Amino acid sequence: MTAATRVLVLNGPNLGRLGKREPSIYGSATHADLEELCLRTGKELGLDVEVRQTEYEGELVTWIHQACDDQTPVVLNAGALTHYSYALMDAVKMRTAPLVEVHISNIAAREGFRHESVITGAATGIIAGFGFQSYILALRAIAEQVR
Amino acid sequence: MTAATRVLVLNGPNLGRLGKREPSIYGSATHADLEELCLRTGKELGLDVEVRQTEYEGELVTWIHQACDDQTPVVLNAGALTHYSYALMDAVKMRTAPLVEVHISNIAAREGFRHESVITGAATGIIAGFGFQSYILALRAIAEQVR
Amino acid sequence: MTAATRVLVLNGPNLGRLGKREPSIYGSATHADLEELCLRTGKELGLDVEVRQTEYEGELVTWIHQACDDQTPVVLNAGALTHYSYALMDAVKMRTAPLVEVHISNIAAREGFRHESVITGAATGIIAGFGFQSYILALRAIAEQVR
Amino acid sequence: MTAATRVLVLNGPNLGRLGKREPSIYGSATHADLEELCLRTGKELGLDVEVRQTEYEGELVTWIHQACDDQTPVVLNAGALTHYSYALMDAVKMRTAPLVEVHISNIAAREGFRHESVITGAATGIIAGFGFQSYILALRAIAEQVR
Amino acid sequence: MTAATRVLVLNGPNLGRLGKREPSIYGSATHADLEELCLRTGKELGLDVEVRQTEYEGELVTWIHQACDDQTPVVLNAGALTHYSYALMDAVKMRTAPLVEVHISNIAAREGFRHESVITGAATGIIAGFGFQSYILALRAIAEQVR
Amino acid sequence: MTAATRVLVLNGPNLGRLGKREPSIYGSATHADLEELCLRTGKELGLDVEVRQTEYEGELVTWIHQACDDQTPVVLNAGALTHYSYALMDAVKMRTAPLVEVHISNIAAREGFRHESVITGAATGIIAGFGFQSYILALRAIAEQVR
Amino acid sequence: MTAATRVLVLNGPNLGRLGKREPSIYGSATHADLEELCLRTGKELGLDVEVRQTEYEGELVTWIHQACDDQTPVVLNAGALTHYSYALMDAVKMRTAPLVEVHISNIAAREGFRHESVITGAATGIIAGFGFQSYILALRAIAEQVR
Amino acid sequence: MTAATRVLVLNGPNLGRLGKREPSIYGSATHADLEELCLRTGKELGLDVEVRQTEYEGELVTWIHQACDDQTPVVLNAGALTHYSYALMDAVKMRTAPLVEVHISNIAAREGFRHESVITGAATGIIAGFGFQSYILALRAIAEQVR
Amino acid sequence: MTAATRVLVLNGPNLGRLGKREPSIYGSATHADLEELCLRTGKELGLDVEVRQTEYEGELVTWIHQACDDQTPVVLNAGALTHYSYALMDAVKMRTAPLVEVHISNIAAREGFRHESVITGAATGIIAGFGFQSYILALRAIAEQVR
Amino acid sequence: MTAATRVLVLNGPNLGRLGKREPSIYGSATHADLEELCLRTGKELGLDVEVRQTEYEGELVTWIHQACDDQTPVVLNAGALTHYSYALMDAVKMRTAPLVEVHISNIAAREGFRHESVITGAATGIIAGFGFQSYILALRAIAEQVR
Amino acid sequence: MTAATRVLVLNGPNLGRLGKREPSIYGSATHADLEELCLRTGKELGLDVEVRQTEYEGELVTWIHQACDDQTPVVLNAGALTHYSYALMDAVKMRTAPLVEVHISNIAAREGFRHESVITGAATGIIAGFGFQSYILALRAIAEQVR
Amino acid sequence: MTAATRVLVLNGPNLGRLGKREPSIYGSATHADLEELCLRTGKELGLDVEVRQTEYEGELVTWIHQACDDQTPVVLNAGALTHYSYALMDAVKMRTAPLVEVHISNIAAREGFRHESVITGAATGIIAGFGFQSYILALRAIAEQVR
Repeated sequence: MTAATRVLVLNGPNLGRLGKREPSIYGSATHADLEELCLRTGKELGLDVEVRQTEYEGELVTWIHQACDDQTPVVLNAGALTHYSYALMDAVKMRTAPLVEVHISNIAAREGFRHESVITGAATGIIAGFGFQSYILALRAIAEQVR
Repeated sequence: MTAATRVLVLNGPNLGRLGKREPSIYGSATHADLEELCLRTGKELGLDVEVRQTEYEGELVTWIHQACDDQTPVVLNAGALTHYSYALMDAVKMRTAPLVEVHISNIAAREGFRHESVITGAATGIIAGFGFQSYILALRAIAEQVR
Repeated sequence: MTAATRVLVLNGPNLGRLGKREPSIYGSATHADLEELCLRTGKELGLDVEVRQTEYEGELVTWIHQACDDQTPVVLNAGALTHYSYALMDAVKMRTAPLVEVHISNIAAREGFRHESVITGAATGIIAGFGFQSYILALRAIAEQVR
Repeated sequence: MTAATRVLVLNGPNLGRLGKREPSIYGSATHADLEELCLRTGKELGLDVEVRQTEYEGELVTWIHQACDDQTPVVLNAGALTHYSYALMDAVKMRTAPLVEVHISNIAAREGFRHESVITGAATGIIAGFGFQSYILALRAIAEQVR
Repeated sequence: MTAATRVLVLNGPNLGRLGKREPSIYGSATHADLEELCLRTGKELGLDVEVRQTEYEGELVTWIHQACDDQTPVVLNAGALTHYSYALMDAVKMRTAPLVEVHISNIAAREGFRHESVITGAATGIIAGFGFQSYILALRAIAEQVR
Repeated sequence: MTAATRVLVLNGPNLGRLGKREPSIYGSATHADLEELCLRTGKELGLDVEVRQTEYEGELVTWIHQACDDQTPVVLNAGALTHYSYALMDAVKMRTAPLVEVHISNIAAREGFRHESVITGAATGIIAGFGFQSYILALRAIAEQVR
Repeated sequence: MTAATRVLVLNGPNLGRLGKREPSIYGSATHADLEELCLRTGKELGLDVEVRQTEYEGELVTWIHQACDDQTPVVLNAGALTHYSYALMDAVKMRTAPLVEVHISNIAAREGFRHESVITGAATGIIAGFGFQSYILALRAIAEQVR
Repeated sequence: MTAATRVLVLNGPNLGRLGKREPSIYGSATHADLEELCLRTGKELGLDVEVRQTEYEGELVTWIHQACDDQTPVVLNAGALTHYSYALMDAVKMRTAPLVEVHISNIAAREGFRHESVITGAATGIIAGFGFQSYILALRAIAEQVR
Repeated sequence: MTAATRVLVLNGPNLGRLGKREPSIYGSATHADLEELCLRTGKELGLDVEVRQTEYEGELVTWIHQACDDQTPVVLNAGALTHYSYALMDAVKMRTAPLVEVHISNIAAREGFRHESVITGAATGIIAGFGFQSYILALRAIAEQVR
Repeated sequence: MTAATRVLVLNGPNLGRLGKREPSIYGSATHADLEELCLRTGKELGLDVEVRQTEYEGELVTWIHQACDDQTPVVLNAGALTHYSYALMDAVKMRTAPLVEVHISNIAAREGFRHESVITGAATGIIAGFGFQSYILALRAIAEQVR
Repeated sequence: MTAATRVLVLNGPNLGRLGKREPSIYGSATHADLEELCLRTGKELGLDVEVRQTEYEGELVTWIHQACDDQTPVVLNAGALTHYSYALMDAVKMRTAPLVEVHISNIAAREGFRHESVITGAATGIIAGFGFQSYILALRAIAEQVR
Repeated sequence: MTAATRVLVLNGPNLGRLGKREPSIYGSATHADLEELCLRTGKELGLDVEVRQTEYEGELVTWIHQACDDQTPVVLNAGALTHYSYALMDAVKMRTAPLVEVHISNIAAREGFRHESVITGAATGIIAGFGFQSYILALRAIAEQVR
């Protein structure tokens, strides 16, 4: 029996606040709910999913480095760092495995500064606007790509 | 037995050229292949999918109007109109059913004029960069939303 | 008895949707109501009014050409094409009879991209923000000018 | 017998110069002619029209304040203040009665700095390009709205 | 005897109006005159020239597609679409045979919005400013390239 | 017993409308209330406060000149002139006594044109967003500085 | 006897350097002096003040989260992060208690990049330009608001 | 004996402050000194010079109107209104006699907002950077032109 | 027998390096080859062609002056001066004979700074993208115009 | 008897063409006429004037260097170099004697690119719009300054 | 014997990945190789070099603070933080000892966002484009300056 | 014994003025001093250095051409041409030997127009901000590269 493919789901600043932060936009489910959803979806797709969250740009960069070393696919929601962290983008550019950028909300329908992502150009693709389902679709996309 | 939900997959200018146009970006499969893939995926998800393609902005607008009248969910790839057709965007704003914007390629990794979409803000969400799989993920997103 | 002056009222993309589209902005009356209002107003002013609507930039351009050939005055609401169709503007520049640009809503009080019109500079003038009454005032302006 | 509705026609800087200023654009009729035309039109429409003119931004602001207090409808031609006076715009935003912005010439067909109005967004609507007839149409629009 | 090379001359919006539109810029000769000139020049150069004109962006895109399929060289005057139609540009990018952009007038000596072409970068080259002669020079350039 | 320090509180266009203008932003208290509050606060702080208001840019400039001559500290709310009156800014630059710019609302949280002040750079500092309390804090700041 | 309201004073990058950094702008007093001043002021106002400082964006975000959870009012000087940290701004938007942005210097009178704050729009208000007194005024503002 | 030609020297906001305002830029001489210098220079050149100063845009506009009516040449230093008063520019455009824009300092060597004048394009010419001598040179220019 | 019309072919900075410079763009033929081709083409068309090259903007300006004096038609490839030399453009504006701007490569398909020409607006027209053939077409255009 | 002060009048590209170039703007007098006028004016003012003209930026720079070494005052009309030659501006910055920038026409009333001068900021002042009289006024200004 | 001068070489995000990241740009040598090279070079120059690397903006800021306290010269490669970290720039501005900005690649020859550094203006100078040799040259520059 | 490698040090406009020009920025040493320093440094490094200076863009271009033909390494300080001469940049792009851009001052810490270099992208690298030492470091860099 072959081992399940490992996938990292990395969440950036303020995402640990899910359920508390602007529920009209992000819903009332928490980060723990999101983690459970990702793990359950991974199991169905034969993926070994791990979920992490941090407020530090430097820690996100370090995690991306590890994923690059291990060629681990990544689902990345960088929070507001999406819009200005070229350091994160430089890290993403080193990847050889798939990396899918996700957003819970439709960032193009919100404030102006959220319309531009400095990361998408270095990612495999982007999925945004489907609530927590964005993560499920991203995991499916990875499952398809690593087959 | 309930009828399958109807879904329109609408493709804009130059997408009928798939297989002939820039294969390094769009792959060698044709629009007929894409149509077949969408129909097959629809069957699996209990969706009654119809695929259309046109070079005319006016025809795309008309199709969106029909979808709005019938509350039919839409998967929309507007081709280059994505970047300047406010007429299309005005039509999309009238929708009440889900409408998912898709792109075969990662438009943020291509020429500058393709980085901005005037449509995303009026759509449910966006999925881009996964080749034809973008359409499959979009159909899944719709199947989830109309449940 | 002299024949009534002929006037074309030309409506562009999405205006056939009146009554269905964003009622808080455009009201609940339909395009058929608008047509009837224009015809009735025309009769009072001694004008032979014809109302047309299309989603196609190319068809609007063709209609403007005909009006230019026949020196027919025009009331034009180009919808969202107002903001980017230089092809339409080129057609309007050929006119010798009056052409009045109208808008139902006050476009300057809406989204940014609606603040600029590429057509006004080539028109006789602009009337915007009075609901369907904008059309009545435009027909009056033409009646005055062709007298 | 009910009293006629009072309407203020307010003209800003340089409009007292009508007949002397750039006759190719503004015609040879004077501000006195314009005043008479507005009064006569008002009489026909059952409106009690008063016409004022000033070179001072501060005086225009004061008149708008009075009109706001009395809920008097206003026809406003702010001259070149149209393009930069946010103080005037702030005053206009306080209105609850109709306020119609008018221009004698088609400002969109003139110098670049005249293409943008900072006032339209706070007004009921705009009528421009019909010579003195712009004022007549504006008075009609108000007559219709206050009915 | 070998067959003459086929060449498509494609004209966009408002070019059917030649002879009626701004004669000071475009001259008094008509589109029929232009067509005859192109056919006669083609005969001299051993080219089988066909001339078409349309007001529709979608129809121009379709014609470019056909030319791409048949590897037919094209002389393209897209009219005002030159300045905003990325859909047309996407079609032009698929070509493998020569495509020469032409303009009757010197577009760089006219209004600002006509200074930028979104098509030139995808064409073989550009010839502008020589009246109808621009078409003759373009046909010569093609005759030379296909030899 | 030493005389109280004199302080001028200068309010610009539309501020005399407090209580009538956009109460959701400015509250329901009037300019008279504001004046009384400033006087009472001044008394507590040992300041001899005088409050003035005008719709005229020229009058504000004149008052600033007087304050400069007398080295009187100033609390200045220039209303919308804040955003374009370089004449006012030139006057402010002549001051040697403290001049504190105040705003009732948080101007950085409102329309774009209110985000930039051409005056702040010439002032001692800025206090904004605390309702009428902005004036109290400004008077305290001045009391501290003149001690 | 009721407990004093708790208030967090949070200082960002480089503020621990007070007394060493650009004394002509920031004065010669140190961060320890600032802390003592804040504590003493808090005592006078019946506030239980705690002062913290960090060079890490992530740590500031975490502290804001804690303040949001506890509904603790905050005085925030984010240093240069003020001008680009949307992550911090997202955190600030979650607050329900007052949060006052402060700056020691008049940031609008310094380099261009310091003129814009991405945080103010999410704060209760801003106080800048009064040296350490900015903190005192901010604590007063909070004392007033929580009463 | 023929009468001396009349010339108006018009100074705008803050120029009455000469001698008090930024002496390093404007020198220590006062507006009275400037007036005397202009009168004496006028006498030498056979010009009947009158000098006026105001803080009000509206008053400057009125003076320009009078000069236009009387075809009186003007030397105009509009102060900071130079950079944003289109109302003043509209007034200047009505002139038929010479109007020379002057500045004491070299405005192009100062802050960015002073680099653009909205008035020069409507004036006869500009003289800037020679201290009070700018006025002498301007009077000479007028003496030459009216000869 | 009438004398042949004289034509100047003027090449600017770096064009003497043809054959050495970026052969993938400019081909391997040298400036001597280009000169010979222009002379031979001139002979066929009854034109007396002279070819010159310089690295100096001032020398190009001088040559244009001579051509203006003699009403000699010009084929001009100004190299990189095309993109910033207003001095050259001023010289070109004095011409009364035809002047055709040419480029070997399709400048619109290269780096951004090469997309704008400050010269085209003052020229008769532009021909770009056909290799050395651009010069042949330009000579034909001139032969046609001087006939 | 003391020697007359030496003054250099330096004219840049295309100014040798006076009398031939756009007479509606520059008049019909030639550069020789201008030279004679400058010499005659110099004699009246006790200045020893020398006039030079060149098409070369490098030569103008060299002349400015000489003037700097000798502390010779300069009247400079750099032609179109005015708008982009930072090399010239660097040279001008080294001067210690007066240098007056002159223009025959009112450059602010012409094409957009002529509105900005990169030289004025480094000059003593600017005089523009008085035809050849601009040079006379400049010489007067210098005569005054060197006294 | 005097002690060697201490120098800190500080590397920011992603630089620990040398040898793995884009070898065509950064070469195949690792960060350990770079460290060894710097130490060896230091020994030759009589400098006591220490090399550090971090992914955290906050840690870099802290290290700069220490260097400022100890007046230790710094060689700084801030990676992508170079382009947006004003916090780092603020720290750098406190230095009194030399600080040289280095980059391995020629950042001006890469993507647009890498062309601007917010740090250079506060540094002693910049050296970029020489591979690891950039560090050697920087150490030499420092050795020279501290002598 | 092998011959020393030849290196050209090329200085552009105004650099011959060293010692006279803005000593606070460029120091009091002259161009002759710089030349001697470069020659002496060359001797130490085994390089045969030649130093040239010119005010003419065309002459600099010609020198670069010679260096390209001979594959001579170059140290280039183009003065203000650095910021706009695309002709120079085109010449630099032809090089195959190293070319190092140098500046005496830290151009990024001076006026805005000096922040962008159009040449760096085509050079081997840039060294700026070390006074004359910039040249020494550049020669060292070349010595290292040609070894």
